[in-house]
Amino acid sequence: MVNVGIIGAGRIGKVHTQGIITGVRNAKIKTIADPFMNDDTAAWIHSMDSSIEVTKDYKEILADEEIDAVIICSSTDTHSPLSVEAIKAGKHVFCEKPIDHDIDKIKEVIDALKESNVKYQVGFNRRFDHNFKAVKDAVVAGKIGDPHIIKITSRDPEPPSPAYVAVSGGMFLDMTIHDFDMVRFLAGCDATEVYVQSAVLVDKGIGEAGDVDTAVITLKMENGAIAVIDNSRKAVYGYDQRAEVFGSGGMVATRNDSLSTAVISNADGVTGEKPLYFFLERYMDSFREEMNQFIGAIENDTDTPLGVMDGLKPVLMGLAAKKSVEEHRPVAISEIMM
Amino acid sequence: MVNVGIIGAGRIGKVHTQGIITGVRNAKIKTIADPFMNDDTAAWIHSMDSSIEVTKDYKEILADEEIDAVIICSSTDTHSPLSVEAIKAGKHVFCEKPIDHDIDKIKEVIDALKESNVKYQVGFNRRFDHNFKAVKDAVVAGKIGDPHIIKITSRDPEPPSPAYVAVSGGMFLDMTIHDFDMVRFLAGCDATEVYVQSAVLVDKGIGEAGDVDTAVITLKMENGAIAVIDNSRKAVYGYDQRAEVFGSGGMVATRNDSLSTAVISNADGVTGEKPLYFFLERYMDSFREEMNQFIGAIENDTDTPLGVMDGLKPVLMGLAAKKSVEEHRPVAISEIMM
Amino acid sequence: MVNVGIIGAGRIGKVHTQGIITGVRNAKIKTIADPFMNDDTAAWIHSMDSSIEVTKDYKEILADEEIDAVIICSSTDTHSPLSVEAIKAGKHVFCEKPIDHDIDKIKEVIDALKESNVKYQVGFNRRFDHNFKAVKDAVVAGKIGDPHIIKITSRDPEPPSPAYVAVSGGMFLDMTIHDFDMVRFLAGCDATEVYVQSAVLVDKGIGEAGDVDTAVITLKMENGAIAVIDNSRKAVYGYDQRAEVFGSGGMVATRNDSLSTAVISNADGVTGEKPLYFFLERYMDSFREEMNQFIGAIENDTDTPLGVMDGLKPVLMGLAAKKSVEEHRPVAISEIMM
Amino acid sequence: MVNVGIIGAGRIGKVHTQGIITGVRNAKIKTIADPFMNDDTAAWIHSMDSSIEVTKDYKEILADEEIDAVIICSSTDTHSPLSVEAIKAGKHVFCEKPIDHDIDKIKEVIDALKESNVKYQVGFNRRFDHNFKAVKDAVVAGKIGDPHIIKITSRDPEPPSPAYVAVSGGMFLDMTIHDFDMVRFLAGCDATEVYVQSAVLVDKGIGEAGDVDTAVITLKMENGAIAVIDNSRKAVYGYDQRAEVFGSGGMVATRNDSLSTAVISNADGVTGEKPLYFFLERYMDSFREEMNQFIGAIENDTDTPLGVMDGLKPVLMGLAAKKSVEEHRPVAISEIMM
Repeated sequence: MVNVGIIGAGRIGKVHTQGIITGVRNAKIKTIADPFMNDDTAAWIHSMDSSIEVTKDYKEILADEEIDAVIICSSTDTHSPLSVEAIKAGKHVFCEKPIDHDIDKIKEVIDALKESNVKYQVGFNRRFDHNFKAVKDAVVAGKIGDPHIIKITSRDPEPPSPAYVAVSGGMFLDMTIHDFDMVRFLAGCDATEVYVQSAVLVDKGIGEAGDVDTAVITLKMENGAIAVIDNSRKAVYGYDQRAEVFGSGGMVATRNDSLSTAVISNADGVTGEKPLYFFLERYMDSFREEMNQFIGAIENDTDTPLGVMDGLKPVLMGLAAKKSVEEHRPVAISEIMM
Repeated sequence: MVNVGIIGAGRIGKVHTQGIITGVRNAKIKTIADPFMNDDTAAWIHSMDSSIEVTKDYKEILADEEIDAVIICSSTDTHSPLSVEAIKAGKHVFCEKPIDHDIDKIKEVIDALKESNVKYQVGFNRRFDHNFKAVKDAVVAGKIGDPHIIKITSRDPEPPSPAYVAVSGGMFLDMTIHDFDMVRFLAGCDATEVYVQSAVLVDKGIGEAGDVDTAVITLKMENGAIAVIDNSRKAVYGYDQRAEVFGSGGMVATRNDSLSTAVISNADGVTGEKPLYFFLERYMDSFREEMNQFIGAIENDTDTPLGVMDGLKPVLMGLAAKKSVEEHRPVAISEIMM
Repeated sequence: MVNVGIIGAGRIGKVHTQGIITGVRNAKIKTIADPFMNDDTAAWIHSMDSSIEVTKDYKEILADEEIDAVIICSSTDTHSPLSVEAIKAGKHVFCEKPIDHDIDKIKEVIDALKESNVKYQVGFNRRFDHNFKAVKDAVVAGKIGDPHIIKITSRDPEPPSPAYVAVSGGMFLDMTIHDFDMVRFLAGCDATEVYVQSAVLVDKGIGEAGDVDTAVITLKMENGAIAVIDNSRKAVYGYDQRAEVFGSGGMVATRNDSLSTAVISNADGVTGEKPLYFFLERYMDSFREEMNQFIGAIENDTDTPLGVMDGLKPVLMGLAAKKSVEEHRPVAISEIMM
Repeated sequence: MVNVGIIGAGRIGKVHTQGIITGVRNAKIKTIADPFMNDDTAAWIHSMDSSIEVTKDYKEILADEEIDAVIICSSTDTHSPLSVEAIKAGKHVFCEKPIDHDIDKIKEVIDALKESNVKYQVGFNRRFDHNFKAVKDAVVAGKIGDPHIIKITSRDPEPPSPAYVAVSGGMFLDMTIHDFDMVRFLAGCDATEVYVQSAVLVDKGIGEAGDVDTAVITLKMENGAIAVIDNSRKAVYGYDQRAEVFGSGGMVATRNDSLSTAVISNADGVTGEKPLYFFLERYMDSFREEMNQFIGAIENDTDTPLGVMDGLKPVLMGLAAKKSVEEHRPVAISEIMM
């Protein structure tokens, strides 16, 4: 049984709390820390499991010798320093994505891990989704031959506020970063070059905040394949999350999930349900599964499925994408300094 | 918080144990009883929740004043006597289907409930499945107008042994009974007449045991609609579970669920995944949801969604179906004695 | 080159005129006869092919030695006498379905053919439709093993007038007759017994005219399979024409055709197009193809794909269906006198 | 009735011959010219319509005062000079795509049209395909709001020979040119900039001939939308022809067409048919329809749906795409000289 402490009791902290309690064998949440911990949050936590301890001070978790692993669900700017601190405290670390927007900060985590023996996993949960996993499995099984073209459609149901994008690092670092990871996952290799065609079509405020809200991103992969991601901050029909890999031997593609398969035929047409609304609805199972794999890696002393380098690479891709927009040209990943 | 005792730790008992632990708020399993309780079963139970008490004697559950509700997951022949005994002990009862094959035995449960104040729910879980619920919702919302034709396809992936059908009551009582309930659910009324065209096409042994393995069952409904069920004991592509309701204003229909939406296109065609294999894969969420509703009915002192009469009616339909096969004619439900 | 005369220039006569001109090689329409031939009809014919002769008297066609084959598209009550007359005139005959509602009249056609050497084909066009043909091909190729359950959904977009059903022979003889043929085609054998559950749910006037408008028809087939047809006179979403064959080795099923594959996703759902409206839209290619096969049989002196017995059998099934409704019991095909 | 002469009796010339005969009212093919006209070709033509005159000399068509319109189906290098010659002879011209690879040659056609009064149409047939037309109709009807992202998937079933690509102008001018037209059609405006990520993954010989066989092409549109085309010379599952338009109000997308809707479920999965093999199978109806519109424009003296500028623009896009590959950067359409 692995004892776990969770740092951060916001939306994603609650997702992992619920995921572990309802679906992760061999893990027990001992403590949840949040600087804004209040009665409501504590009550929610205790309705899930009355034995969980709550605190405002994450240092209690790091100091607790009974806690084996820490799940970092705090705000993005604290991911890398908390990672370093937890690693130095000898805790295994599951860190939500992105580790940081600053390459130097991620390097500090890399350095801390070199001097340590703990497990480190970064939270690109979509790899554990049933649909994307099925695509990967088909590719690995050779069912589509050598990949030639990898296509990701990733569109959110609602745009964030302009205030958010001003601090999030922008669309490429807060949203596309998942798609960059997916491209690496499905191609089975890294990207070498990025080109972005982007626009502000959803919310002018996002443009005024210095970001874009619509983009088509083309990538050259190490194995020769071409990848293309299309993003929008607003799909009125809901969360659009699809992948297609085309290769020398065929193609594998996914559709969206919906609440049911019911289809109504009437005078207006033949109508099925919209995609599941957003990531909490669409990806709950994948949050549980990534945690199962993290706990499994600790128990069996194996590599985590997504190490610190898997946390770094999509950030490099995101920074290259931003540079491509600024300089209106294809940008090599190698141009992004480390 | 509702304290629960489970009688029977076989396959369906384990399903409910897992379902309650991972998905039913406000319920706590206190004790699980099974005459064949052994170390393996106890170990499995304790890996789920170490605080659950285990016993070979269900009477401990009925005598336990801290236990509010009993979930009957024992063999079919014990459903009705255990129901009566639990009701008399003042416990709320969730009873797996069917209550009994013998109408008189079900009447004893009905009589016991008349003298009592407990909640009673019977386990027709499919009503709580996302797909069938979406069909019902569409009908209730008037999206297809008045129902004219109700179609249920229900085919198992593998036939049971001839030995099983000899004691199960036969296909109409062990398998079609779910479809009879579904027809009532979707039509919103009872059937008045049943006609069966059946055959032994899957396994001659089933025929030798006095049963059929393939059938098309036509039903006349109180509201004038016609229902038709097609059953097979063996679909090589997996569990085939679909519904279609056609009416004056349109049609609503469901497809099967599968593990993912991935589709592979290659020289052989365009191939998606098979349906989920069988009821444990297909209906796990519905088992959790029916239990949530049972616990909710206790907490809020409301009617359960499926009372004892909902347990009786499909048995009457199953007995009428058997009579239709024997006498090779349409049989009115009213011909089945009560 | 086969010279053809068409008797009847109503809707189906025009369909065959257009079909032959645009898609049947080796056939030339020489003359079209219709007792109500007028300037408009003649103008329409000549816009298609200015060399076609028009007449009010079908006997001109039968007397024309240059004409090899006659296509009978006149009203149903004239099908059998015109068939006999054409056969005796030594013409090959393509006769629209049904040959007659009166078995004795069909026997006269059978007798005439015995003394003759001409080809005779009856117009069950759906066998030549791309979807139904693909189902048949899958069955014949053994891809679903031995057929166990055959399901036909056949629903019209609009009901006929009560006046029409009073003379058409009723739903089983004017509409279901196509489905009876399809069941024989897909099963590869004859039906032995029919049971009908029917209702008047679409138009009370149809009931007052002595007919039904909604039905589920169960059939026992010679090879042990069970077939089931569901019919409605009115599907608000358009012409619903589907087939499914389930067997020991799998299942083959078709969807409806629509004008395009375009699907619109918006806030209301994910909506595709309705089925093609009615038989002219849905089956135009099959009308052309059945005629190609008829002309081919003449040219190559081979059997037609659908002989006079294939015209008789669905009428027997339709008469058995009517008897089943009247007597509220399963009716053996052998009960229908010949 | 419009009298037509066809220049070129190769594959596409035969397509138009058949299309006109079987589906274009008000047009009559008077003469077909081909420098390689032989007995076989003449026999094929006469089997379609015995009254068509055949010749080796296209000048007979241009000199024939009874001929109103010329359909140019000859080799690509002759499209522009024949267009000019036919225009000067006062004939309406339907010219297969592309008009030319040389912008100056297309300008000569533009100049000839300025001094003339004839209709000119270029053969981008896909605009008349049922699926692409449905997408366009949905966009025009406002069903998806303002277009933001336009996606075209266009993959051939088999690569051409390296010898072919050496003279065809390469993939962007012989294959993608259709997709460039489609992007303009669906966006309702021109592209301003093109960026190409391309590779040689299908056939090294194509690379040695100086061309690519796999590409993702990103385009910036005048209305702010982003378009992306993905191309491959070889999809083992057949001709992959899909479009998707995503906008402020929703999305419209098409699937491929196949021969039937039949789906087989068995132990291997749930398998539908492959897409129709190639353009003759997929687009036959669109070839007929573009010709109907051309004849209609002549009869009604209206604009053709695709004028000479619609022939020019995709060539500019193709040349910009080639320059993008050569110079590894986004290229403005305005950089391509006129």
